[in-house]
Amino acid sequence: MVGPLGRCALILEYDGSRYSGYQFQLNGDSVQARLEAALATIMGASVSTKAASRTDAGVHARGQVVAFDRSRPFPVERLAAALNGNLPRDIRVVRAIEVPEDFHPQYAAKGKIYRYFFFNRSHAPAIAANYCWHIPKPLDLQAMNAAAACLRGRHDFQAFQAAGSAVASTVRTLQHIWSQRRGHWVVMTVYGDGFLYNMVRIIAGTIAECGLSKRSAPEVAAALAARDRKLTGPTAPAAGLFLERVIYRPSLDRLAQL
Amino acid sequence: MVGPLGRCALILEYDGSRYSGYQFQLNGDSVQARLEAALATIMGASVSTKAASRTDAGVHARGQVVAFDRSRPFPVERLAAALNGNLPRDIRVVRAIEVPEDFHPQYAAKGKIYRYFFFNRSHAPAIAANYCWHIPKPLDLQAMNAAAACLRGRHDFQAFQAAGSAVASTVRTLQHIWSQRRGHWVVMTVYGDGFLYNMVRIIAGTIAECGLSKRSAPEVAAALAARDRKLTGPTAPAAGLFLERVIYRPSLDRLAQL
Repeated sequence: MVGPLGRCALILEYDGSRYSGYQFQLNGDSVQARLEAALATIMGASVSTKAASRTDAGVHARGQVVAFDRSRPFPVERLAAALNGNLPRDIRVVRAIEVPEDFHPQYAAKGKIYRYFFFNRSHAPAIAANYCWHIPKPLDLQAMNAAAACLRGRHDFQAFQAAGSAVASTVRTLQHIWSQRRGHWVVMTVYGDGFLYNMVRIIAGTIAECGLSKRSAPEVAAALAARDRKLTGPTAPAAGLFLERVIYRPSLDRLAQL
Repeated sequence: MVGPLGRCALILEYDGSRYSGYQFQLNGDSVQARLEAALATIMGASVSTKAASRTDAGVHARGQVVAFDRSRPFPVERLAAALNGNLPRDIRVVRAIEVPEDFHPQYAAKGKIYRYFFFNRSHAPAIAANYCWHIPKPLDLQAMNAAAACLRGRHDFQAFQAAGSAVASTVRTLQHIWSQRRGHWVVMTVYGDGFLYNMVRIIAGTIAECGLSKRSAPEVAAALAARDRKLTGPTAPAAGLFLERVIYRPSLDRLAQL
């Protein structure tokens, strides 16, 4: 539907440092609460939203996707600026588009791209400290990528899910996982069709241990096969994780990030 | 002198956001005050320091250089870790080395490298907002670099000095000035033998106006020749500026940043 009413999708960028996570929580300041408050101001009525991903406390996003229905006529091309005028400075709407009435940002998603940022130098970073996990000892990128190769493809990722989670299936496909060095930074990019609770952070914690020679690629393969969380590494800190982009089918191509 | 006493140089990284600048101030929290407090704790006596550059409030550094004399035996290889244990998390000593007794980080400097970060997208950044100047309209890099070319070389930079400054000579040499785009970021790198007060920020403000077609390269050349601050652009915000590195003569090569 094109017009002043109908469903809209927003691409959201946020610095998760100050928030208890994306999702609304009774005892915490959430990105969702801030966004819905800004939407209520603009729409003149309470607005409920659906998001592509419930990022945890401290996790950042450059491409979170959120949908809502306009309750009063409001031109989509003015939405981003109007919302940004009512949002804290660490949450920005970078794009707003009209989407089909049945669009759900989570169920329609074909996949997601996350990045995990390691800061790899003996001394911790003074700059951008909220955007990384500080690893003082040198990371061996070749060992990290060799271990990551065991995770590529379609697998049961139960060993890489937070203990106590309950989902129907723990089978997911990791199309891409690769780490690169840029100066003191090591950046791990993952692209998958879906992610279990804490999956990227447990992968980051496990792959980092491979980069520190505390763990080998065959051990990672064995942990995956055993589907045992006790055999994988620590959950890497939230601060290093960025939801970069949610991928939709070509007919929703306008959701591609600017 | 090699030994537990003698002069040391520190390479300092800091996030200037919370500070009133590098230099000690009566009514503000400065990087220098924090560093000298940490040094006093370790040395058991008050310590005075000399720095390569007095960065302004909000300006960041990845390679500030500071010298001091040890008042008690303290092995240089343990200095960085000991100081970092006594410094706030947004100030880090990344290296400590022994230097000649007459070493002064400012007077011995052959040159300095600064970077200025523009964030160039219609909506402001939610992430790293303290590390850039947000410019909503598209910057024309070719126009920026054409204007910058007029500033390269040895010139009287009086037009690029904060009004009211008093220095013996306003002649400086800019060996390098170049802007590059990296996604939404535009990064201007300058290397010069010395910089007047606010010089890099006035250059950034002037070059940005060239990138927005508000000002032309010949106008920049004319402003330089006229030595008139009223003919140059605004002082760009402190948040976008990083002191990247101080360059010394080869005999002090160990001061090269890690």
